[in-house]
Amino acid sequence: MTFRARHLLGIDHLAPAEITTVLDLADRYVDLNRRTVKSADVLAGMTQINMFFENSTRTQASFELAGKRLGADVMNMSVASSSVKKGETLIDTALTLNAMRPDLLVVRHGSSGAVNLLASKVNCAVLNAGDGRHEHPTQALLDALTIRRAKGRLQRLTIAICGDIAHSRVARSNLILLGKMENRLRLIAPPTLMPPGVKDFGCELYDNMAEGLKGADVVMMLRLQKERMDGGFIPSEREYYHRYGLDAEKLSHAAPDAIVMHPGPMNRGVEIDGELADDINRSVIQEQVEMGVAVRMACMDLLARNLRAERGRAALGALA
Amino acid sequence: MTFRARHLLGIDHLAPAEITTVLDLADRYVDLNRRTVKSADVLAGMTQINMFFENSTRTQASFELAGKRLGADVMNMSVASSSVKKGETLIDTALTLNAMRPDLLVVRHGSSGAVNLLASKVNCAVLNAGDGRHEHPTQALLDALTIRRAKGRLQRLTIAICGDIAHSRVARSNLILLGKMENRLRLIAPPTLMPPGVKDFGCELYDNMAEGLKGADVVMMLRLQKERMDGGFIPSEREYYHRYGLDAEKLSHAAPDAIVMHPGPMNRGVEIDGELADDINRSVIQEQVEMGVAVRMACMDLLARNLRAERGRAALGALA
Amino acid sequence: MTFRARHLLGIDHLAPAEITTVLDLADRYVDLNRRTVKSADVLAGMTQINMFFENSTRTQASFELAGKRLGADVMNMSVASSSVKKGETLIDTALTLNAMRPDLLVVRHGSSGAVNLLASKVNCAVLNAGDGRHEHPTQALLDALTIRRAKGRLQRLTIAICGDIAHSRVARSNLILLGKMENRLRLIAPPTLMPPGVKDFGCELYDNMAEGLKGADVVMMLRLQKERMDGGFIPSEREYYHRYGLDAEKLSHAAPDAIVMHPGPMNRGVEIDGELADDINRSVIQEQVEMGVAVRMACMDLLARNLRAERGRAALGALA
Repeated sequence: MTFRARHLLGIDHLAPAEITTVLDLADRYVDLNRRTVKSADVLAGMTQINMFFENSTRTQASFELAGKRLGADVMNMSVASSSVKKGETLIDTALTLNAMRPDLLVVRHGSSGAVNLLASKVNCAVLNAGDGRHEHPTQALLDALTIRRAKGRLQRLTIAICGDIAHSRVARSNLILLGKMENRLRLIAPPTLMPPGVKDFGCELYDNMAEGLKGADVVMMLRLQKERMDGGFIPSEREYYHRYGLDAEKLSHAAPDAIVMHPGPMNRGVEIDGELADDINRSVIQEQVEMGVAVRMACMDLLARNLRAERGRAALGALA
Repeated sequence: MTFRARHLLGIDHLAPAEITTVLDLADRYVDLNRRTVKSADVLAGMTQINMFFENSTRTQASFELAGKRLGADVMNMSVASSSVKKGETLIDTALTLNAMRPDLLVVRHGSSGAVNLLASKVNCAVLNAGDGRHEHPTQALLDALTIRRAKGRLQRLTIAICGDIAHSRVARSNLILLGKMENRLRLIAPPTLMPPGVKDFGCELYDNMAEGLKGADVVMMLRLQKERMDGGFIPSEREYYHRYGLDAEKLSHAAPDAIVMHPGPMNRGVEIDGELADDINRSVIQEQVEMGVAVRMACMDLLARNLRAERGRAALGALA
Repeated sequence: MTFRARHLLGIDHLAPAEITTVLDLADRYVDLNRRTVKSADVLAGMTQINMFFENSTRTQASFELAGKRLGADVMNMSVASSSVKKGETLIDTALTLNAMRPDLLVVRHGSSGAVNLLASKVNCAVLNAGDGRHEHPTQALLDALTIRRAKGRLQRLTIAICGDIAHSRVARSNLILLGKMENRLRLIAPPTLMPPGVKDFGCELYDNMAEGLKGADVVMMLRLQKERMDGGFIPSEREYYHRYGLDAEKLSHAAPDAIVMHPGPMNRGVEIDGELADDINRSVIQEQVEMGVAVRMACMDLLARNLRAERGRAALGALA
């Protein structure tokens, strides 16, 4: 089993074998009904702190359930209403929590790089639950697991990522992961939502859905991040849906067995047709959420193993 | 043991034998000091999510403690500050939580019928913790248990429900439950707070406390729901207390051993005299809260049994 | 083992032997890496409710972790957004929670004396997590433990408490505790932040850091409680730092092995130089947080023992 990371800060740091390790372990946490299995011994005696500087019902809930299913003591910090208001810095807040000796620290923050900075200051394992426009590694891992379960493999697939690429850390982490796994990547977006420099990820760029979706095995829609569009071009929702919203007609250009994904929360009738989102023959959106819990269980399990090993070595070192 | 329900959406769906089953089981969860007994095996391995779209300290706390005393993993969603703000619909939020595979979903919502709608979309057991002006079944069950423990029976009692009937789901669920159990029901309220059509519940209507309380075995006061009175008649609190607030004088018209109830939170000096509320010879208000935890434990225990049985049948069906 | 208290309302009520009992037990909860040890049996089956009428990330988190490490079911009440808004009184809220039968109630409240009032109404053990300008006993106990571990004793030390004494319950509880233990106490503050009557605590008063710190073994800085300065004199932060902020130069007047403390959250560059706060040769600020969890574990353990003994006596009494 290959997984050497001390923290999970981004997909960028993971080798393909490490990604496969996470997905294999996550698969083992799921039963035949796609229900994650309670395994209270795995993190017994360990403490997980969720520190969300940005609100996120679904991601925080997923991490909380994952931790509880593994037997951790889980504590949520509503950091918005916390000492941050009393003038304390991010680092001081983190050092204070670190001094309470959690084993796992799950952090979401609005600034790219804030989670990396924080990880350099603490001596527990840090999981990035989304930082600015940088990375959202567990989302990319759950997407990868969902694809692998639906397609039987995670290589040599044609995958189209569509919509608001510019504001999306989900897109960024997915591009890195799916690229490492040697897939053919396409990005479809209006020019104003296609970030400069994205060509470096080795993908084909489109601003037309019919062309971009042609023959795609996987169609990954993104949320229109209205809350992050400060002053830039905001398309009308109606116009956006007409050109870039996924419906049956546009999907007909993809492969006949293409799957449809969305990280949620969805704007129905903006990024995606509501009926298509609910069509269990095409949409794997619910399964993405299911796999989210499993993937987070796997990540925390692996990081906890490395943490225990490190502590064991330190204790031996102290004896010698 | 008779309890066939898959969800607990309202009293309306329960047969008298099912109500008795809940109360009998709740009684067994209470020790001689009226303390609920920790029974961590009952919901071990199960996940309970509390999803409160309206704030309610006491009801949410009661459900949370009930779940923890039964060994469930309990997660609170502060839905007010959640994805709902990002434009997600109630149903999408529910489907997302459902995909995280809780076993029990406790829901409070401001709209009548929202909890029923939600229950139709998920595959876990749903408990209604209050929806609009519709139902609040666990409140009616805890009131019933409190009455049965004080009076030794839940039949052939004269029960007066007094105050803001119009805005009260508590009154509605109580009327249904106490009517099913064949009690004599009286409603006492100012005409503006007596809802039209309430006669259909087969109760006697009064707008005078002395007359309505005459010979009553149980006096159930209601909270004046100021926050739900949009534009309608709002009586002055002083005038209201003078005519409808319960004090020793008005209570003297009831049976000598009548008990006094209030669902809380109380407006002392508006609906009820503070001293009377604290008089342990007449008031069972604290015991209502105590029984609340026990009744919620019983409801979740029974729903979890049905859920396990259903899953067992599904697994057998898959084998056949 | 001497600890007779039923509640932990303030240091004022504790005898020196009781303080020593808390610190000795807390020490046993800390391992060689200053990590608190999971001991899930200690509060197994018990319920702890955290009821914070004032927000406090660090104190609430510390109590929550302490309870979970001892195996309690822990419930946080966000009382700001609760029934208090519906017109319910503090006492009714407390009585309601009490009726849910917690074993331990941790309370922070903005009014001095509110926690004592509340303790007189409930039949569980109450821990004061800070009330107005009155007391913050667990802070004083964790400070005492930190000092004892660094200095090897808690007697005959020269301890300087510096800064915003007037608004500080931390200072008040520390003065009482350190006085009981027969230390030499000095207070250093600008005249406007030195409360009248503080001389009664038997300490020396200074408004000059160089003089006040001379030969001190312990330098305890306080937070500038800007949020509690209603209308009074507010010094400019720059001026305040110049005269009262702790830096290497001012610290050079203290004993060569003096330790530096701060209860947090820190205003770096106002009360203390950032580099000095991080200097692990002088600053024990992180250790204060670590000891906070241990001290709270010890306090809850001791109160729970007394509660069990009291219940045992009551049960025997009922038999006789």
